[in-house]
Amino acid sequence: MSAPTYDTLLVELDADGIETITLDRPEAMNSFTLVMARELEAEFRRVRTDDDVRAVVVTGSGRAFCAGMNLSAEGNVFGLDEDAAPTVEALREHLTEEPYQSGVRDTGGKVTLAIHECDKPVIAAINGAAVGIGATMTLAMDVRLASTKARIGFVFGRLGIVPEAASSWFLPRIVGLQTALEWVYAADILTPEEALEGRLVRSVHEPDDLLPAALELARRFTANRSPAALAMARRLLYAGSGSAHPVEAHRRDTLAMWHASIGDGKEGVRAFLDKRAPEFTGRASEVPDLG
Amino acid sequence: MSAPTYDTLLVELDADGIETITLDRPEAMNSFTLVMARELEAEFRRVRTDDDVRAVVVTGSGRAFCAGMNLSAEGNVFGLDEDAAPTVEALREHLTEEPYQSGVRDTGGKVTLAIHECDKPVIAAINGAAVGIGATMTLAMDVRLASTKARIGFVFGRLGIVPEAASSWFLPRIVGLQTALEWVYAADILTPEEALEGRLVRSVHEPDDLLPAALELARRFTANRSPAALAMARRLLYAGSGSAHPVEAHRRDTLAMWHASIGDGKEGVRAFLDKRAPEFTGRASEVPDLG
Amino acid sequence: MSAPTYDTLLVELDADGIETITLDRPEAMNSFTLVMARELEAEFRRVRTDDDVRAVVVTGSGRAFCAGMNLSAEGNVFGLDEDAAPTVEALREHLTEEPYQSGVRDTGGKVTLAIHECDKPVIAAINGAAVGIGATMTLAMDVRLASTKARIGFVFGRLGIVPEAASSWFLPRIVGLQTALEWVYAADILTPEEALEGRLVRSVHEPDDLLPAALELARRFTANRSPAALAMARRLLYAGSGSAHPVEAHRRDTLAMWHASIGDGKEGVRAFLDKRAPEFTGRASEVPDLG
Repeated sequence: MSAPTYDTLLVELDADGIETITLDRPEAMNSFTLVMARELEAEFRRVRTDDDVRAVVVTGSGRAFCAGMNLSAEGNVFGLDEDAAPTVEALREHLTEEPYQSGVRDTGGKVTLAIHECDKPVIAAINGAAVGIGATMTLAMDVRLASTKARIGFVFGRLGIVPEAASSWFLPRIVGLQTALEWVYAADILTPEEALEGRLVRSVHEPDDLLPAALELARRFTANRSPAALAMARRLLYAGSGSAHPVEAHRRDTLAMWHASIGDGKEGVRAFLDKRAPEFTGRASEVPDLG
Repeated sequence: MSAPTYDTLLVELDADGIETITLDRPEAMNSFTLVMARELEAEFRRVRTDDDVRAVVVTGSGRAFCAGMNLSAEGNVFGLDEDAAPTVEALREHLTEEPYQSGVRDTGGKVTLAIHECDKPVIAAINGAAVGIGATMTLAMDVRLASTKARIGFVFGRLGIVPEAASSWFLPRIVGLQTALEWVYAADILTPEEALEGRLVRSVHEPDDLLPAALELARRFTANRSPAALAMARRLLYAGSGSAHPVEAHRRDTLAMWHASIGDGKEGVRAFLDKRAPEFTGRASEVPDLG
Repeated sequence: MSAPTYDTLLVELDADGIETITLDRPEAMNSFTLVMARELEAEFRRVRTDDDVRAVVVTGSGRAFCAGMNLSAEGNVFGLDEDAAPTVEALREHLTEEPYQSGVRDTGGKVTLAIHECDKPVIAAINGAAVGIGATMTLAMDVRLASTKARIGFVFGRLGIVPEAASSWFLPRIVGLQTALEWVYAADILTPEEALEGRLVRSVHEPDDLLPAALELARRFTANRSPAALAMARRLLYAGSGSAHPVEAHRRDTLAMWHASIGDGKEGVRAFLDKRAPEFTGRASEVPDLG
């Protein structure tokens, strides 16, 4: 199976459709560059349309997961186009009109919105330091596993900047509002035990066991499953988490269930009654907008 | 005291106003049918208007709580009217216009929206298998207790379908976004210990102690309490949980406090100062819309 | 350093910019009066504009934190202007038009909205009884510490009234929906252990260690930090917690990062690369609206 090649990422697709994306600048602790940002965004946008990819595992090459923005190399902390030099007021207008097209947007958010919209389960295998954007990018992934060597830090406050990458949407929904505020204010480096106790990561593993555990989880999520149903379930849970009233979820449920009932749901029920494994044919790339 | 009779439900009201609804198809593990759906929806709509009912406990007859949709008997996984055969696009229009009246709606959601709007504390006493809609229907209940025999599964993914019954609104708010995603993706059967650790259930009990514990909790929630204040508190917490900004809660608080202050609140404060039990007269059925 | 003087509050500002607000009616268990409400609202509105204040710690004088509304002294449970005597319908109109200006508003909510908007980290040091508004006012504070003597109760239901002070927005986001509903229904007094287990408080301390621990945390939150970045991070997390979609957080992130990047972010990165402590000059009072 072919996978795209990148300068800062290693991408491998296994026979089960599990894609591993390895942040691959080990000589620089996989620190985040504008090239890496563009490549991550491009790859997650590509994953959305590639039905051969069933789930994604993200990890880091060498000792680190991602040691944050590469501050020494970049002229600009977060890649905004300084030549555009808008005022905050001009920027606000601009963002209201065309949030996705703008060239003046938080770089980390471009990556996490692409992850958010990729329609596949995404698992973070945090093998080492995950700091700054290295920490916030994992929040848009669905499930986080950590190695005993992981060190996770929402350290933005130490640099006079703010947590980005839409982390303010994800973090309180994962760890609760009090823990989110404390971690962002303290800007400390969390141990794997603290991350587990705070429910940021779902499990902690010996270094050599981390990637196998993440791959095994990805297989459990996808084996004998309908990619179309998985994509819809993922969208439902994120949308439900942000909705004002359950009736909004009910509308989406009806659309999703209808789509399933005339597709993989029919086969799923038949296979269940026949006591055999289902043979699903629905494609994640053909799931309708649930509104 | 009289209680309505149903084909698939046993309904009993005790002297304290605690109504027990028992899913009663023990020969079929209380599996969910379209008749049961209509009866549950009707009963929770009735409960909302019956001031004799102070709280509701839901449990199952025999070994199971509810083993999910009765797949063998139904021609259709989720009761949508296949003759209407709309496209997803037509369905979306339809739902936008009249979400509550539509005949083409997710069946489980009709039940959970009725539970959501019943204006009384609702306690799930999960005595055994609670699978599929048997699991998601409990999410719209306020508090969940499990027996050591409980087995809870959001197994939709195994059938090529999606979690329904507005579960995508409730589940992340109960267990957090990461756990919700993992449980839905894995589609496994959870033990009571896993459900407790994940904060899905608030306690685990020996089988013989489950229903008494649920009834005792219902009594603690309602004895010497104003049904009007309870109904408003329930609405406030659900609405607050879905609101964008605290000022929206503040508006509702003001309306609710005003209503209380000219009603049961006056008696409550007087009784407190007199060191006697209050005699509340407010009715849940007369609570104003809090907006 | 000078600090304002109040009838019901002691306000002290230390050399690190940590302001301690002590509820100071020890002879009455610091019970909440309309004067205290006005003073708390005024002080938190003042804090927002006073760049000398870096963080706020709130505690109680004597044995209690705040034993709730002073029911014996007030003619009215929650300070609504009974002469205005609007119907709930008239009140609803009124609130829609001018929520912040209205004289007919839940008193506790005026205080918690002022806390919510104060743009500084706020830490509750719950030293004793925190009941009714004494409990709900702490929910709008960012982090809660409890002494082993703390007793926390959302006891409104016992008085025929409802939890107020916008608590329905905060409580489910701190402890989850199930625990929020159970605590409000039960209307019991929680021990510090129960509050910790339910994640309402982040730690429990011996009485003599409570205030030092809260002050130490406030120092960790603010030493060598940009007040402008802290204010923006606080706004981002609360706004993100209430937003429908991550793209809304992304818009705010971009505005906040832009503001940081042309201000304290530049100094923060330079100081990091120079391995020295940063010298931030940004002011919380000059942070732009993030929309």
